[in-house]
Amino acid sequence: MTRAMDDDDCVEDLRKERARCSFNKEEITNLIDGGPDKTFQRRRIEDLFLSDPEFLDPKRPEYLSHEERYANELRKACHMIRKFNEDDEIQQLVGAMEGIRTLMGSGLGVALTKDGNPLALHFVMFLPAIMGQGTVEQQAEWMSRAWSGEIIGTYAQTELGHGTFLRGLETTATYDPPTKEFILHSPTITATKWWPGGLGKTVNYAVVMAQLYTQGKCYGVHPFIVQLRDHETHQSMPGVTVGEIGPRLGMNTNDNGFLRFNQYRIPRTNMLMKHSQVLEDGTYVSPPSDKLAYGTMVFVRVAICFDVYRQLQRATTIATRYSAVRHQSEMVPGEPEPQILEYQTQQYKILPQIATVFGIHFSAKKVWDTYNEVTGNIHDGNLDYLPELHAISCGLKALSSSDAAAGIETCRLACGGHGYLASSNLPRIYTTTTAAITYEGENTVMWLQVARYLIKSYHEARKGLPLQHSVSYLTTQPASSYVTSDLSNAGLVDAYKKAVSVMISNSAARLQGLIDKGLVFEHAWNSCSVLLVKCAQAHIRYYTCDKFVSGVDGEELSEGTRNILLRLCRLYLIYHITLNQGDFLRSGALTASDISVLEGEITTLLADLRPDAVNLVDAFDIHDRILDSTLGAWDGNVYKRMFDEAMKSSLNQTDVPQAYYKYLQPLMKANL
Amino acid sequence: MTRAMDDDDCVEDLRKERARCSFNKEEITNLIDGGPDKTFQRRRIEDLFLSDPEFLDPKRPEYLSHEERYANELRKACHMIRKFNEDDEIQQLVGAMEGIRTLMGSGLGVALTKDGNPLALHFVMFLPAIMGQGTVEQQAEWMSRAWSGEIIGTYAQTELGHGTFLRGLETTATYDPPTKEFILHSPTITATKWWPGGLGKTVNYAVVMAQLYTQGKCYGVHPFIVQLRDHETHQSMPGVTVGEIGPRLGMNTNDNGFLRFNQYRIPRTNMLMKHSQVLEDGTYVSPPSDKLAYGTMVFVRVAICFDVYRQLQRATTIATRYSAVRHQSEMVPGEPEPQILEYQTQQYKILPQIATVFGIHFSAKKVWDTYNEVTGNIHDGNLDYLPELHAISCGLKALSSSDAAAGIETCRLACGGHGYLASSNLPRIYTTTTAAITYEGENTVMWLQVARYLIKSYHEARKGLPLQHSVSYLTTQPASSYVTSDLSNAGLVDAYKKAVSVMISNSAARLQGLIDKGLVFEHAWNSCSVLLVKCAQAHIRYYTCDKFVSGVDGEELSEGTRNILLRLCRLYLIYHITLNQGDFLRSGALTASDISVLEGEITTLLADLRPDAVNLVDAFDIHDRILDSTLGAWDGNVYKRMFDEAMKSSLNQTDVPQAYYKYLQPLMKANL
Repeated sequence: MTRAMDDDDCVEDLRKERARCSFNKEEITNLIDGGPDKTFQRRRIEDLFLSDPEFLDPKRPEYLSHEERYANELRKACHMIRKFNEDDEIQQLVGAMEGIRTLMGSGLGVALTKDGNPLALHFVMFLPAIMGQGTVEQQAEWMSRAWSGEIIGTYAQTELGHGTFLRGLETTATYDPPTKEFILHSPTITATKWWPGGLGKTVNYAVVMAQLYTQGKCYGVHPFIVQLRDHETHQSMPGVTVGEIGPRLGMNTNDNGFLRFNQYRIPRTNMLMKHSQVLEDGTYVSPPSDKLAYGTMVFVRVAICFDVYRQLQRATTIATRYSAVRHQSEMVPGEPEPQILEYQTQQYKILPQIATVFGIHFSAKKVWDTYNEVTGNIHDGNLDYLPELHAISCGLKALSSSDAAAGIETCRLACGGHGYLASSNLPRIYTTTTAAITYEGENTVMWLQVARYLIKSYHEARKGLPLQHSVSYLTTQPASSYVTSDLSNAGLVDAYKKAVSVMISNSAARLQGLIDKGLVFEHAWNSCSVLLVKCAQAHIRYYTCDKFVSGVDGEELSEGTRNILLRLCRLYLIYHITLNQGDFLRSGALTASDISVLEGEITTLLADLRPDAVNLVDAFDIHDRILDSTLGAWDGNVYKRMFDEAMKSSLNQTDVPQAYYKYLQPLMKANL
Repeated sequence: MTRAMDDDDCVEDLRKERARCSFNKEEITNLIDGGPDKTFQRRRIEDLFLSDPEFLDPKRPEYLSHEERYANELRKACHMIRKFNEDDEIQQLVGAMEGIRTLMGSGLGVALTKDGNPLALHFVMFLPAIMGQGTVEQQAEWMSRAWSGEIIGTYAQTELGHGTFLRGLETTATYDPPTKEFILHSPTITATKWWPGGLGKTVNYAVVMAQLYTQGKCYGVHPFIVQLRDHETHQSMPGVTVGEIGPRLGMNTNDNGFLRFNQYRIPRTNMLMKHSQVLEDGTYVSPPSDKLAYGTMVFVRVAICFDVYRQLQRATTIATRYSAVRHQSEMVPGEPEPQILEYQTQQYKILPQIATVFGIHFSAKKVWDTYNEVTGNIHDGNLDYLPELHAISCGLKALSSSDAAAGIETCRLACGGHGYLASSNLPRIYTTTTAAITYEGENTVMWLQVARYLIKSYHEARKGLPLQHSVSYLTTQPASSYVTSDLSNAGLVDAYKKAVSVMISNSAARLQGLIDKGLVFEHAWNSCSVLLVKCAQAHIRYYTCDKFVSGVDGEELSEGTRNILLRLCRLYLIYHITLNQGDFLRSGALTASDISVLEGEITTLLADLRPDAVNLVDAFDIHDRILDSTLGAWDGNVYKRMFDEAMKSSLNQTDVPQAYYKYLQPLMKANL
């Protein structure tokens, strides 16, 4: 474990880096965990799981066949649950059901079942769906069966031909009053359910989203609990075709599956009826409000922000430590090869990604806290904040997943060729994280939802209506020229505000211009959508900058720790200004000479942060087993670890491989 | 085969797209191939190889274990050579040795051995190294042994601890006059050769780059032919430790290997002595010029540009066809779901990547032609053009590989979740292409070499010395203000020139400022290196824009074809201006209102190009077997193909997997 490692085992380069730490690492660790008690709890749980030899892999998954990989991860997934159920200390530490759900999604959970956990969706989606959408009676029945092990489930929504657009789903559930059953059916190939984790071979039940038909009318998409496999034999039920969708870029043991129904009957009571109901005679009873579904989506999207930022922590840890151990080229002729972390280009690749970790942290935490406030209000019947929260969570999901994926890839490439090795773990960290760009709301769709909220707010402001806090900058018409250049943090946040406000007002004008020319609104919207996406991105970037600044201000920290966070925050603010300088120049938010000054300041910040780079990633406190990287391990024995890992290759278990005798020898003997 | 496909098999969506082609597809195909005869030749070779059932994979590589994957690709690689040797028509079509080298590197070759060809480096690096660095006698001896099948080789340069910086290599070759032998040795773990393709288990020889020691002095890195495995048994030689380096992000059957020497002896005559020599008594004889090595590097880097642009062609083909077949959401409420290619955001993702294919084409072709001219001059002793050519090829390698990798990833994500499926082939296209960012000259190092050339040229210009053509814009001091906005293609190319010229002059001033403050040049350089990389990128972007414009001008084309290329060229010019608008605004090359006008023009260009999108990728003329994509096949039967591929999953060969009985059933019976 990182904190328990003896520094004497470390290479000299890392010892030196650690000897000059300018801040209190534990403060940063606690900040990320959410307090010292949370840090203690996490470490203890990691110890309990990682000391269990059952979680070791006999071989890296990359050496195995597709079937063997699945079997190996299913083995560990089952053991994870068994251990959870049998160990009182673990249950006390993390709580019962909520605990195992958290565990499955945690850095530890993801690391234990490296290639994807086929049981994860049972806890992360299936049980919450029953809790959130079932009546009290349904909860009682299904939760107890699911808890007893009789049922393992997943959540089946996406179809082969339909993703984002829920109304396009084709699977039907038609109510048949004489038998009091729903008939589930997949009328076309595109109606095939496709992607749900665990669906292929693992689960025997699913919550299936289907178009509800009753009394000859379609009432839209509703959730149904459906048995897919026999309780005794685990064979798929007659009328149900279910299987695995084949290999993917990553997460190959998630057991993502497909599902087709052929006039498959389930009892009426299997419809989850907390919100809508179908009565015995087929009468449809509508839900009180359809805004309620927003809540779960906000929850899931903020959870994704935390998932991907944990992955970015791992990638920055690997790239930073490797850059402190790797020596390459001459900086000054005749002098020894420097640590590659001395190169400004290398600092520029890695340090902004470390800053991004904190940018996501403070903004996702803010949304999380607001979510909990708002959820309180939902129960009191106050739904006013939901549209704002929905827009921010959409945008933050898109920004975090794309920033994290791009940042991880930058870290991977910063490790040169060695970052391409599976043993660096950077390939898996990337392939896992990039998936978040398209799942749970594809990012471009997310951006356009944010844009819709922005344009709506813009028009409300023009009408003199009050705006919600995150868009309150739209109430004032942006000044046509900017007077003084205030390059303080507050001044830069204002510049972000100014820039996005001009972008939104220009886009709204362009949109209106097209409508005035006779385009219907939807076509005008489509014609502006590239610019509208840019507005949405600029708005959410402004939001993260604002929350980063106020987040650091709001924490109680020792001086060294505050200073290092302020530097990272400053780097984050300036980095994104220089990347999008056109927006700031054209809006008049900043001048060309401001940008030059800020470019110069980046040089200073990189140099100032460099000495603490290794200490910053140490503070992420990632256990070597969770990091799972030859390049990033705490001790920095990079080359020995790479070599030792290579020796474990299945191809290295014999000097001459069988394939030589079979294919190469005959060819060589016959002349090339 | 694409061109032979019957359109009746196609889905209606694609038939409609193809019915309204505004240009002559065959002209574009010929342009890319290099002429109608080349197109004919390529198609014939593709037919000959693809009709051979030996090249079919019994299972997708993703289902196999690491060892099985290697065996399967080695099987096909061996068959490729056998077929080449036995088929007169193939030899006539592509020529003898040059032919098989080209074949190995072609789209066909890469597609036949999907996961990496363990024999490729024998033809692509080993034989050329002998030809380029061996004396006439050495060529005669080794080529005939390599051609007879006695020897299969690779090229071993990179070490575990040393990549880019050649002088840092640690492997030694010490001459021992009494025995007339060189003693090869790996003094440390970091001296281990690491990465060479084919090295792990396939080759029995390698050209090894090692520090040459003779008469007590080190003469730097030289090439040696070294036997690694026994001719009869294929077992590794005593004193040689060789094996495979383990799994990677992609190209897992390239058989990348490691290699260590323990005082391993080879005859003196195994040093490749075309340039330098060691005489029997140990006397070192230096080469006439060390600039000669530039030639091979230019060749390899331009070859990479063509490799990656073929991969980008494949990714754009898949994303475009899928976007024409996929329908999603409502654009206008109540209307049917449109093809996703109708969405501007989707057009903006894909069309600039199609333009990039041509941007790389015209600029790489220009460098290729110049290379052939210059190589003529080398033999005449004229090396003047080498520094310019070297800088451009470094820059173009970096630009092409990073543009292609980013473009492919954009295409993959444009296909939503389905782009994550191995059966889309986008994962493999990405993982193969991204490797080019770090191999054969890591991109950041490449950019800094370009920057060095730019700053040197800048200072020569200040001294009134004549400049080479690609940097001649540095001779005139950029005007301090810009008078009229010329937004023609020529005007935009001028704007690129103006912008980069101001960036270089600012960077040079900043560099000088730091030196004036007392920094040594190298530290000043490092302090400016982020900006210097930006200069280099802007310079090479200018170069590709210039060559795109002049390339289209220089082709004889029918009007429709010229128009479509002009639109793509225009999109390329404007797209990169809007992405880097700060550079244009700050240099005064363009005004804020110019940028607004250009942003508007992008909207028009996307709409104008959209109707020909499918026809443009059709013109890349990629055989369905080479494309190997459920989402991108000619007929557009996307969903049926995805479903059929899924059914082939090894996990779907039984309804209930063994892992259920072993792990899940006991857990379910024992309560979850």
